[in-house]
Amino acid sequence: MKAEILSTGDEISKGAVVDSNSAYIAEKLEDAGVEVTRHNCVGDDLENLVSILREIGSRSDIAIVTGGLGPTTDDLSSMAAAKAAGVELLLNDTAFQSMKKFFENMKGGIGTKSDQKQALLPEGSECLINPVGTAPGFVLNINKCKTFFLPGVPHEMMRMLGDQVLPRIDKLLGNEIVFNKTRILSVFGLAESAVSEYLENINEIFSDIKIGLRAKFPEINIKLYVRGNDEHGLNMLLDNAQGWILEKIGKWVFSVEEKSMEEELGKILAEKKATLAVAESCTGGLISNMITNVAGSSDYFLFSGVTYTNQSKIDILGVSPETIRDCGAVHEQTVKEMAQGAIKISGSTYGIATSGIAGPGGGTDEKPVGTLCIGIATPIEVKTFTFNLNFGKRVMNKTIFAMIALELLRKELLGIPA
Amino acid sequence: MKAEILSTGDEISKGAVVDSNSAYIAEKLEDAGVEVTRHNCVGDDLENLVSILREIGSRSDIAIVTGGLGPTTDDLSSMAAAKAAGVELLLNDTAFQSMKKFFENMKGGIGTKSDQKQALLPEGSECLINPVGTAPGFVLNINKCKTFFLPGVPHEMMRMLGDQVLPRIDKLLGNEIVFNKTRILSVFGLAESAVSEYLENINEIFSDIKIGLRAKFPEINIKLYVRGNDEHGLNMLLDNAQGWILEKIGKWVFSVEEKSMEEELGKILAEKKATLAVAESCTGGLISNMITNVAGSSDYFLFSGVTYTNQSKIDILGVSPETIRDCGAVHEQTVKEMAQGAIKISGSTYGIATSGIAGPGGGTDEKPVGTLCIGIATPIEVKTFTFNLNFGKRVMNKTIFAMIALELLRKELLGIPA
Repeated sequence: MKAEILSTGDEISKGAVVDSNSAYIAEKLEDAGVEVTRHNCVGDDLENLVSILREIGSRSDIAIVTGGLGPTTDDLSSMAAAKAAGVELLLNDTAFQSMKKFFENMKGGIGTKSDQKQALLPEGSECLINPVGTAPGFVLNINKCKTFFLPGVPHEMMRMLGDQVLPRIDKLLGNEIVFNKTRILSVFGLAESAVSEYLENINEIFSDIKIGLRAKFPEINIKLYVRGNDEHGLNMLLDNAQGWILEKIGKWVFSVEEKSMEEELGKILAEKKATLAVAESCTGGLISNMITNVAGSSDYFLFSGVTYTNQSKIDILGVSPETIRDCGAVHEQTVKEMAQGAIKISGSTYGIATSGIAGPGGGTDEKPVGTLCIGIATPIEVKTFTFNLNFGKRVMNKTIFAMIALELLRKELLGIPA
Repeated sequence: MKAEILSTGDEISKGAVVDSNSAYIAEKLEDAGVEVTRHNCVGDDLENLVSILREIGSRSDIAIVTGGLGPTTDDLSSMAAAKAAGVELLLNDTAFQSMKKFFENMKGGIGTKSDQKQALLPEGSECLINPVGTAPGFVLNINKCKTFFLPGVPHEMMRMLGDQVLPRIDKLLGNEIVFNKTRILSVFGLAESAVSEYLENINEIFSDIKIGLRAKFPEINIKLYVRGNDEHGLNMLLDNAQGWILEKIGKWVFSVEEKSMEEELGKILAEKKATLAVAESCTGGLISNMITNVAGSSDYFLFSGVTYTNQSKIDILGVSPETIRDCGAVHEQTVKEMAQGAIKISGSTYGIATSGIAGPGGGTDEKPVGTLCIGIATPIEVKTFTFNLNFGKRVMNKTIFAMIALELLRKELLGIPA
């Protein structure tokens, strides 16, 4: 079964907005076993809309159209659909009632004439109720193509695609009860090509699983996807594949639940009832920002000293002036004393310290841009590390530096060798 | 003149990657005075590629195609272009020499046979040299359509579009010497609809300027765009429009150079030879992270104390235990003492302190989620502020909180009333 996607609207055709809906829809359709042959986009122009709907109608079995269902005169999708199918627009009672209900909840009653325009749907179409917005969608046969019309607002489109479109497509495909199961493994510290090499044989061993790699800097995500009727069997299959992958590259997998590094670290700290303080130089607050992006982080995160100057490392963290003089700011001895200082002044169980050169300036022959020293303080010792990684951009370097520090503490807490 | 855009590749058609190239290209073409009538996307399938190129060739004057120029067997754009135009692929000497040069710089000499495949271009095409990557582009007439083929890698595409494609399109349009001038004004603290209302008449007063609003959370950008032959006149026109806008909403415009809030603040601090320390509670390190994203920030940024616990506010920043006991952490008196503490322990000229409730938990009837207290310490006093803004998401709240704090200090430094 072949499908096309059509996104509509001047804001997309003229480039004011990047169309992220089409990628989302394409992935869901491909996952459902439908081949996506084309994406299309046209602006708010009735003639162009009618021609492209007719073309798609002559080429494709299924189409998903987004946008143009709103109340304004720019919103032309229903009219274009009616013209393309050679039918009239009629007041659709299901659409009208669902809108009425939505408006009553939102602002106390259906309003203007332009609001009501949204309930005018092509004759012969079936209304697709929008539970999270005003504009109803609909599905209409245009020539040989079952054409689904959805709002352009991403969260409305996603909700209606999942609740109303994909189940109808499953029926068209003759799938009785179908379960779609996804598992995401998050990898840090291996390049996409390396992950791909390690998993070379996975397609042969797990031929029923669809596997995809996504570079999501600074992570690589491995997506495992299966569909079928036996829910328990599908979960077992995913468990097996996950086990196989963890045997190969478990060292670099920090989440099997699509969680961020800071969420995974926070979960472990909370479980251990441990607390954390940070001393940041080159990461400049990024580590504490990441940690505090997690709701509930105040249970384990106590303090970060972003000590950007040597003097503040001495005054606030208690780094010895001799260490700064003899070793400089970027040195394992310095991060050792920074991590000790962070623990000492906050009373935390664990400490992280970073000092390095994020660039673009500040590098020397001995310590070039990308040099990174990390200290991980535990209740019994401070472990120190030196790295050299330059990704060419200050913000990318800071991101990698922070991820390495969080990952080192995560491994320390789990007893995994660094 | 009408144009279409075609992006190619399974990673886009199947939804693994969001196509951001098409929006970029569309905006540049529209700015150049070309009407973009359609975007299209097909996967790595020769037959589909040939048909869509022929269709576009019969409909459009100009087309920009991205992707499929690489060395692998999936890269089919040259072959599809040749078939669509009914010509052969030939070794293009310009392409071969430019690739040779690029490879010599990169890895010491042109390599494999698959590398050389990239120099096979359709007969009659003109090579478009790629100065920043291996795959050359080309331009070929397919039916009535001048079809430009560019790499899919965004920075390569952008470079070649600007250097090679747009000048050729200007020539096609018969524009002798054309200057494209853009100015971006960055607004914080006004909703898009409010900006739009304030600028209601701008299109009548400055009818030669194209004006666009872009919501770029948490900023609104106002894009002014003009084109023409008289460079000096265009700049004056933009200056006038900028002046008109600043008269209306200057209070909320923090940059006329497309700089970030933290860059603008850093520039002012550096000019004044002033230094800054921060005391962060609810922003959790985000303020220092933003400030240190700016290269050279070590010239003015000394220290941030991310004091997430009451005890660390007392121990590290010297907030009085009585203040915490009587006022709580989220209070103007508390941020006053935090800001004073940050200045005192770091020796900075200015200080920022934040304390608030980012959510989702932690709110009370008296201090709901979204409550924010800010202290701005100057060499002579500490100004304090209370806000209540809940954007419903922890990370969005942190972002808004940090921006407000940076904006308050920026206004303080410039003598603009808060």
